[in-house]
Amino acid sequence: MKVTPQLDLRARDEDFINLNPLQTGGRTYPETRKAVSSYVDGYSVCDWCAGDLCSITKPGVQGMLGEISEFLGMEESILTNGCREAKYIVMHTMCRPGDTIVVDGNAHYSTLVAAERAGLNVVKTGGNTKPEYKVTPQSYREAIEKAKKEAGKPPKLTVLTHVDGSYGNLADAKAVADISREYGMPLLLNTAYSSGRMPVDGKKLGADFIACSGHKSWAAGGGNIGMLSSTGEYSEKIFRKSAGFKIKPLEILGCSTRGAQTLALMASLPHVKERVKKWGEEVEKARKVAKEFGKIGIDAYGETPRNHDIIFCHSEKLYEISQTHKKKNYFLYRELKERGIMGIKAGLTKQFKISTYRLNDLQIRHVIDSFKDIMETLG
Amino acid sequence: MKVTPQLDLRARDEDFINLNPLQTGGRTYPETRKAVSSYVDGYSVCDWCAGDLCSITKPGVQGMLGEISEFLGMEESILTNGCREAKYIVMHTMCRPGDTIVVDGNAHYSTLVAAERAGLNVVKTGGNTKPEYKVTPQSYREAIEKAKKEAGKPPKLTVLTHVDGSYGNLADAKAVADISREYGMPLLLNTAYSSGRMPVDGKKLGADFIACSGHKSWAAGGGNIGMLSSTGEYSEKIFRKSAGFKIKPLEILGCSTRGAQTLALMASLPHVKERVKKWGEEVEKARKVAKEFGKIGIDAYGETPRNHDIIFCHSEKLYEISQTHKKKNYFLYRELKERGIMGIKAGLTKQFKISTYRLNDLQIRHVIDSFKDIMETLG
Repeated sequence: MKVTPQLDLRARDEDFINLNPLQTGGRTYPETRKAVSSYVDGYSVCDWCAGDLCSITKPGVQGMLGEISEFLGMEESILTNGCREAKYIVMHTMCRPGDTIVVDGNAHYSTLVAAERAGLNVVKTGGNTKPEYKVTPQSYREAIEKAKKEAGKPPKLTVLTHVDGSYGNLADAKAVADISREYGMPLLLNTAYSSGRMPVDGKKLGADFIACSGHKSWAAGGGNIGMLSSTGEYSEKIFRKSAGFKIKPLEILGCSTRGAQTLALMASLPHVKERVKKWGEEVEKARKVAKEFGKIGIDAYGETPRNHDIIFCHSEKLYEISQTHKKKNYFLYRELKERGIMGIKAGLTKQFKISTYRLNDLQIRHVIDSFKDIMETLG
Repeated sequence: MKVTPQLDLRARDEDFINLNPLQTGGRTYPETRKAVSSYVDGYSVCDWCAGDLCSITKPGVQGMLGEISEFLGMEESILTNGCREAKYIVMHTMCRPGDTIVVDGNAHYSTLVAAERAGLNVVKTGGNTKPEYKVTPQSYREAIEKAKKEAGKPPKLTVLTHVDGSYGNLADAKAVADISREYGMPLLLNTAYSSGRMPVDGKKLGADFIACSGHKSWAAGGGNIGMLSSTGEYSEKIFRKSAGFKIKPLEILGCSTRGAQTLALMASLPHVKERVKKWGEEVEKARKVAKEFGKIGIDAYGETPRNHDIIFCHSEKLYEISQTHKKKNYFLYRELKERGIMGIKAGLTKQFKISTYRLNDLQIRHVIDSFKDIMETLG
């Protein structure tokens, strides 16, 4: 039997402090792991299929989606294969090929790729420049006006990255929603890095659609999963059923996450509801790290003070060390790994991202001390 | 903490003989479960991201896709969120809204829903009638001619369900491919119930695209996963990269199965490669059950003899029992459950589907004996 190469077991989140911003919010709980193990087989969630995934009551998928809508201050939610798939659904439903949408300058690549797949023109907001890279509501007004002028009509959709994955900036969603409404444009809020970590109330923020990443920020696991929530005005359109198969939501081809990840989300949800209440503590941790890093020659790009656990680090000093170190630019990765810390991309020294999410005080202390130690020993 | 209701653990495949055709090919191996547990956290597969999922070499995603292409007799493969998502990708790439495609009369609903989402007109083949429900190559010629006449031009794509999920009929893919080629139409072969269970050689069959279901027939688990394979002529188009992000395959929005299911497929692949070699034994098992069932008043719809593990059962006798039984139409589900057998939808008696896939001889014997016993005791 030919063994597919490199199927090593993974223990990064068990054996190390993992700082990878992509992964800290998707770390599973013991209950999540139990649920995934139990529902590991293909189509396990369909034992008691009621016609479509989102209507299943045993296990309680339908009830969970109701809870999620309430939790997000929205009216209706469906499961999607991920956050990017949720964004594509909104674009594919609300726009026609050739239409224009307005997107923030810090948008994740998947927002732009989703727009490209849907055949849309994208006008990006400007002004989000070094070192804070802030996206301002005013820049949306300018981008919408620009798009209007170019196309001769208002763009079809506003997309805002609630918290971007590069700088961890928290955008003023309410202000962008107000501007969007002024132009009669619905707002899609990409909460891949916010909902599930911090409180998000779609009603208060004025979002028409909320795209969520279950495996990035809701501690879901096993496979990728997302959620798309909508408010009354657009729910019927976005969640429309197939003409031929009246119970099948068209945009998820009937059923999306037909596996263990649905149960993972379900098992993690009670934890998620609790953890967002402690968001203030998470922000404090990030601020503490940013402050301590600042003292040793690692600056944080993005807004000051920090409002999120992602920190974009910039350090000329670490780069200088790499120039003479025998491991070259891999020295930082190796030094950190020796100290039980992973998640910074191997080879990066001058600029890298970390996330302090869900680290405890001892771990935070260890991360700060480790960087200090590396800088002092090698710098 | 509010506990989401009904999060019972699942043990259907551990404690019962499971006959659900949706699930027998997606039952995981011990190695699969180990891989899923190990990669359970969100974005676990991205530890050593090389820019996009399908290029990752640690773990060996790229190598696995090469193996899969070779295994399927195709040239290039990508991971998708499932088989239906793979079908949508082909339709979305090869057709424009308003175009017509030709689909077999036994097509799964997700084929039709994918076509609807892509804005396509569908002409179905006819003649697949009771009791064999066979789709003939000739019916494709008729459907293509009909579509041509209606639209004034040849349809854009032929879709064939290699083995359908209702009757388990094995279609003559080669003959349909030849007809399709005659009209200059590419053929998409839906192998949700064939590849991973039985040998499928895309080159021999003449398929231009093959859509696979990892969680249905390749023993992948954790979450849903599919594969889309293509041949030279169309590979570049179907696997085209984003214009703005040159390494991101556009149709999977950069990365599809960014979780444990990718590792599940990898862990199961060596088993899958071996098991397809024993496909003859699986067919024999199904034929034996169909034959024994025939003797006790349960007929099999679909082709005779059977060429697949799915059996569509029809029984007036079981229906008659349900009419006077105190558990009414739930009697069959309950009687079988008492005997350690599950997977037939609760409430069905007259018509139901089973799959004998991967049952051992003792289990096959027990299934036959159990039905006999139920019929004799209650009939």
